[in-house]
Amino acid sequence: MLEEVRQGVARRVAGGGPRPHLSVVLVGHHPASETYVRHKHRDAEQVGITSSDHRLPETVSTEEVVELVGHLNADPAVSGILVQTPLPPQVATGVALEAVDPARDVDGLHPLNQGRLLRDEEALVACTPAGILRLLDDHQVEIEGRRAVVIGRSTIVGKPVAILLLRRNATVTVCHSRTRELDEISRQADILVAALGRPHFVRPEMVKEGAAVVDVGINPVDGKLRGDVDPAVAEKAGWLSPVPGGVGPMTRAMLMWNTLKAEQLRRP
Amino acid sequence: MLEEVRQGVARRVAGGGPRPHLSVVLVGHHPASETYVRHKHRDAEQVGITSSDHRLPETVSTEEVVELVGHLNADPAVSGILVQTPLPPQVATGVALEAVDPARDVDGLHPLNQGRLLRDEEALVACTPAGILRLLDDHQVEIEGRRAVVIGRSTIVGKPVAILLLRRNATVTVCHSRTRELDEISRQADILVAALGRPHFVRPEMVKEGAAVVDVGINPVDGKLRGDVDPAVAEKAGWLSPVPGGVGPMTRAMLMWNTLKAEQLRRP
Repeated sequence: MLEEVRQGVARRVAGGGPRPHLSVVLVGHHPASETYVRHKHRDAEQVGITSSDHRLPETVSTEEVVELVGHLNADPAVSGILVQTPLPPQVATGVALEAVDPARDVDGLHPLNQGRLLRDEEALVACTPAGILRLLDDHQVEIEGRRAVVIGRSTIVGKPVAILLLRRNATVTVCHSRTRELDEISRQADILVAALGRPHFVRPEMVKEGAAVVDVGINPVDGKLRGDVDPAVAEKAGWLSPVPGGVGPMTRAMLMWNTLKAEQLRRP
Repeated sequence: MLEEVRQGVARRVAGGGPRPHLSVVLVGHHPASETYVRHKHRDAEQVGITSSDHRLPETVSTEEVVELVGHLNADPAVSGILVQTPLPPQVATGVALEAVDPARDVDGLHPLNQGRLLRDEEALVACTPAGILRLLDDHQVEIEGRRAVVIGRSTIVGKPVAILLLRRNATVTVCHSRTRELDEISRQADILVAALGRPHFVRPEMVKEGAAVVDVGINPVDGKLRGDVDPAVAEKAGWLSPVPGGVGPMTRAMLMWNTLKAEQLRRP
């Protein structure tokens, strides 16, 4: 459970060794990003991880982001570096993310980490997909040999969670906006992951009776967060990871886990 | 078609600029590897790419492989580097493949290239998955919106071809040894890719009438190559890429394509 993950990190941090440090880079003043970054610092404090905040103006160039990241890469006190996305349009996101030292890439978005994930090698895994697997395990959802359907094929969630489910021996289908007869496919799922970013898109008739459903959506609607899953699905699903709650907080907990892991990986 | 790919490379090589050079590293005397390497040098010669052969004894250490690769990385005349697998058991394959300069990784097996593939960024893509897509296109197989089923989840074929099919807007399912009711799933496929490595595993009753079937298997049986697809599938499939032929030669042609691409990518 969520508290177990947090306490597990806190216990290990308190257990000795250098205290992990998380550096967060925020460009501009995207309101949701401001909130996320604030949460990350608070989460870090709660588990005993130190953190620092690095701000750049909205008008910054790709080179300036890369330069800041380079300074953080060179700082031996920094265990993990997170560049908060989205970045302003003039900043090349791929270049900025690839500038982060892969060994400090606690967001797991560096292509080297994503490639190692694909290759089933040791990697820092993106926090949301890692959190989804942790939630499934916490709720004793059987994965091996089951049909998993992932709706959404993003780089941050859809594709990496599909790889993680495959590694755990699920049979995995990835669906998206061009998928035909989606309802029929999603009804075959023992595990259904909704990560497409459309509020209440998954309706009860798309869900198999008793399926485990993971809602990854965070769609702001009238000042509230709505998931990708219609709450009525709860009556049909065997288990539903809800929004708010569920994946969001677990993603934040996995970031703390990754920061600790990054610190441990670089120790001799 | 295959000849078009080869001629396309040959025409571009002849068209000017530095002639690409492919360096092939072979450790030991694995008989199939010897054959593959010989083919690669012949293919290169036929399209006007120069190549060199670098042999290491069967008993070599990981460090010695990495050292040789490092020399090749440092040689400005080398456009592409290929470390022939399988490597002997004492050599850490991941370490050896990761030693190759990603910009010269014409086999597309470096995790950085596989991560860029996952992220839909410019990458050197592994030759077999790239060849499968080329074959489908050559045979005017519609991919967008179709159901694709990949049997096999290897790092070299199954997972990367799934990502390439997803990028082309197919709805993709990856099956494997732990998949239940495989026949039922494979019968839903408009495009069926068999890459599991079991001779004649895919039988006609597993195939939808009219489906496009790509046989990626190369299983030696009684001195002959057998694919993963029972030849009787040809009567049911709309199109079958056969073994021998099909994916094998196209994979070789894609290696030449990647060598040319690597040379072009590093030009200013």
